[in-house]
Amino acid sequence: MEFLVRIDVKWPADGDAQQKARLIEEETARAAELAAAGVLRRLWRIPGRWANYGLWEANGATELHAALASLPFYPWLDIDVRPLADHPSDPFNSSN
Amino acid sequence: MEFLVRIDVKWPADGDAQQKARLIEEETARAAELAAAGVLRRLWRIPGRWANYGLWEANGATELHAALASLPFYPWLDIDVRPLADHPSDPFNSSN
Amino acid sequence: MEFLVRIDVKWPADGDAQQKARLIEEETARAAELAAAGVLRRLWRIPGRWANYGLWEANGATELHAALASLPFYPWLDIDVRPLADHPSDPFNSSN
Amino acid sequence: MEFLVRIDVKWPADGDAQQKARLIEEETARAAELAAAGVLRRLWRIPGRWANYGLWEANGATELHAALASLPFYPWLDIDVRPLADHPSDPFNSSN
Amino acid sequence: MEFLVRIDVKWPADGDAQQKARLIEEETARAAELAAAGVLRRLWRIPGRWANYGLWEANGATELHAALASLPFYPWLDIDVRPLADHPSDPFNSSN
Amino acid sequence: MEFLVRIDVKWPADGDAQQKARLIEEETARAAELAAAGVLRRLWRIPGRWANYGLWEANGATELHAALASLPFYPWLDIDVRPLADHPSDPFNSSN
Amino acid sequence: MEFLVRIDVKWPADGDAQQKARLIEEETARAAELAAAGVLRRLWRIPGRWANYGLWEANGATELHAALASLPFYPWLDIDVRPLADHPSDPFNSSN
Amino acid sequence: MEFLVRIDVKWPADGDAQQKARLIEEETARAAELAAAGVLRRLWRIPGRWANYGLWEANGATELHAALASLPFYPWLDIDVRPLADHPSDPFNSSN
Amino acid sequence: MEFLVRIDVKWPADGDAQQKARLIEEETARAAELAAAGVLRRLWRIPGRWANYGLWEANGATELHAALASLPFYPWLDIDVRPLADHPSDPFNSSN
Amino acid sequence: MEFLVRIDVKWPADGDAQQKARLIEEETARAAELAAAGVLRRLWRIPGRWANYGLWEANGATELHAALASLPFYPWLDIDVRPLADHPSDPFNSSN
Repeated sequence: MEFLVRIDVKWPADGDAQQKARLIEEETARAAELAAAGVLRRLWRIPGRWANYGLWEANGATELHAALASLPFYPWLDIDVRPLADHPSDPFNSSN
Repeated sequence: MEFLVRIDVKWPADGDAQQKARLIEEETARAAELAAAGVLRRLWRIPGRWANYGLWEANGATELHAALASLPFYPWLDIDVRPLADHPSDPFNSSN
Repeated sequence: MEFLVRIDVKWPADGDAQQKARLIEEETARAAELAAAGVLRRLWRIPGRWANYGLWEANGATELHAALASLPFYPWLDIDVRPLADHPSDPFNSSN
Repeated sequence: MEFLVRIDVKWPADGDAQQKARLIEEETARAAELAAAGVLRRLWRIPGRWANYGLWEANGATELHAALASLPFYPWLDIDVRPLADHPSDPFNSSN
Repeated sequence: MEFLVRIDVKWPADGDAQQKARLIEEETARAAELAAAGVLRRLWRIPGRWANYGLWEANGATELHAALASLPFYPWLDIDVRPLADHPSDPFNSSN
Repeated sequence: MEFLVRIDVKWPADGDAQQKARLIEEETARAAELAAAGVLRRLWRIPGRWANYGLWEANGATELHAALASLPFYPWLDIDVRPLADHPSDPFNSSN
Repeated sequence: MEFLVRIDVKWPADGDAQQKARLIEEETARAAELAAAGVLRRLWRIPGRWANYGLWEANGATELHAALASLPFYPWLDIDVRPLADHPSDPFNSSN
Repeated sequence: MEFLVRIDVKWPADGDAQQKARLIEEETARAAELAAAGVLRRLWRIPGRWANYGLWEANGATELHAALASLPFYPWLDIDVRPLADHPSDPFNSSN
Repeated sequence: MEFLVRIDVKWPADGDAQQKARLIEEETARAAELAAAGVLRRLWRIPGRWANYGLWEANGATELHAALASLPFYPWLDIDVRPLADHPSDPFNSSN
Repeated sequence: MEFLVRIDVKWPADGDAQQKARLIEEETARAAELAAAGVLRRLWRIPGRWANYGLWEANGATELHAALASLPFYPWLDIDVRPLADHPSDPFNSSN
């Protein structure tokens, strides 16, 4: 099942620069793992914000929550999850 | 450039059934054309609503508007457009 | 997977009384079928409104959408779907 | 009487780790007591958030408030309470 | 148990004057009955609007819903119900 | 003239415990004075929150403001004031 | 006591032109009466909208409601009333 | 003085096609007049909506209101006006 | 040109008492200057809040911004500015 | 492609004065560079706020994000980006 997920990073403007750099490195690595596992399908920056929209795939909301909670920035994330249903006119499905 | 587009269909509950059936048929055909043209990339139903999220690609907002305005249901649509920027951790880009 | 679903019925105050009575009868029957099928688990009235909160269970958002769209009042419904994940302190799970 | 309760935990991202671990342990124990007492009926995680929806049962809002205020995390909780009325199509009631 | 209830009357500006006059008469009579029964405790106009705040007392949300749904204007009402808990500094309680 | 007043206490979760205890004691005493003076008429807890709805009576908004600003917790209060007009169906008025 | 009142006129775009012209004439006359009576103190158009902000003075919310409800357009008005308290730096008061 | 103005056209989806075509023609002509008079400076479509953002210049809000109210579609327009102040880093000003 | 301005003071509840007292004194003095200059016309307290509505007059938004930014509390102010247009039924204008 | 961008500066009221002065200087210089590069086209202050509306031009959202993220105040900025499409009645286009 697919989910549309919006993530806003609430890192303080005066936060520790070293901790931030380390977390970004770990976040990138974890995102790559989730992408390799087929959980994170697409990711877009929201222009002008430290935020993104992502297309995630998981076997239900419990599995999705585990993936999101595994992100190193998780304590600083404001996450909004929207469930997605199949659409008969989805080009991806019809091209399969 | 990609856009995240939410479309809600504001068709009246007591609207004409024949006109509705005809418009749905035309909308499906137009969606297929836009998918074939690479403008409509993905489409998902929002569960429980006559509404969808779509991933659209266009050469700017003017071209996107022309595509959206070409939908047969356009006068009944409430459309919200969000611009998307590339994200370095997007699995799609890194797999190219 | 479980979903928390809020349904508001947007039936016009001056709507046809006979059609309304017939739709309520059909809605009650369809709700009973969905309950028997294990899709509709719980249902509560929101006091003072023609609206309800329901606990629904479905194999993903696509199956849930099909259930909701099968309700006779569907064209008049404003439906909000929230995905639910398991909680380790859920009394229901721990009692199993 | 049943209530639909949403709880968001506003614990600071840089809060003390030991205090957090201790409070989680106490919260789990208190939730189990409230479940055993029949006050906390169901509990679901909101995916991606430190938040939950719960189905609570109490003899009125005063008793419910006492239960919620007894949670060890209470000073950090943002709680929204919605009263629930019986619905004639509730599968739970009709199966009794 | 007490409830704070806000009621907005969504009667159309060009609605039938006779039907409106008759409904107001019936509504006044029904309000008097609910007051006599101790269900409707206080009622205030929201200045500038066809709307009111009311203090209602009922043995739970199901009983409250029955009272509200018995109002002759019910199909035209937009009703918001907030549950109220006892407060130790409530002058009414301490004067009892 | 009566007012419906909602008060939310924005005391920090990690605030000083002694100062909090002292302020609560003073607040209770001040509320009793305002009740004795006929300014504070009713007070209800909003379940699950450090917040209340109150029915206040004052000779206009200036007098009401003075009463609210005299509360010991005032610097931490988020206060919303709604003016109330008499309603012909108010049980309290008709019973006088 | 003074009130800040916002009024939006919800007259339908395709409403009857003659009735509209007559109501505007009556509304202007009634506004002049209320101004002469000292109830309507100031009135400003909200640019781009059929709406206004007004400074009203009345002996409480009940009297204000009577004034507002006496406006010929009243059934089409969406009115928001905010109570105003005296401010020690108000130039009007200090010039008295 | 400059204003940022958002205009949404609330023309009904099933409105008369001839009236709509005539109004669009008149609106285009009026917009050209306002542009020639230096009142309408820039105009952009909001993609996916019958709506626009415009940069307007007028000698105060009263003159702006007169310009907006002169639009043939005015009874169907939902207009939001934001006042703009000069910014020292505005490229337009510094290039003068 | 007149403006309706709402100002909320976001001074922290545990802010420095001496700095607060000094700023209030300076703010009062500056308000008197702006009143004497005819920029600040009226000022009302919003009951229950450290906030006010004001009627300001300035030769455009740039001049208004300069006046608002000159307030000693400016860094702590949340300010909302609404432009006002003349209304033909304004008692003030017709009495001139 | 043009974008309408709103930027609110969330600098703390008690922030370091020297750092603030230095950032403002750097921000002014960077804005001048972006203006010279044709990315920042217009900039207006929102009266009463440390905030602005800007007209930006970029070859898509990714390029726009890079420009916005290059602002020295970026970690303190709350940025809202709206895509703009060409309008046939835009005076700027028709004058080309």
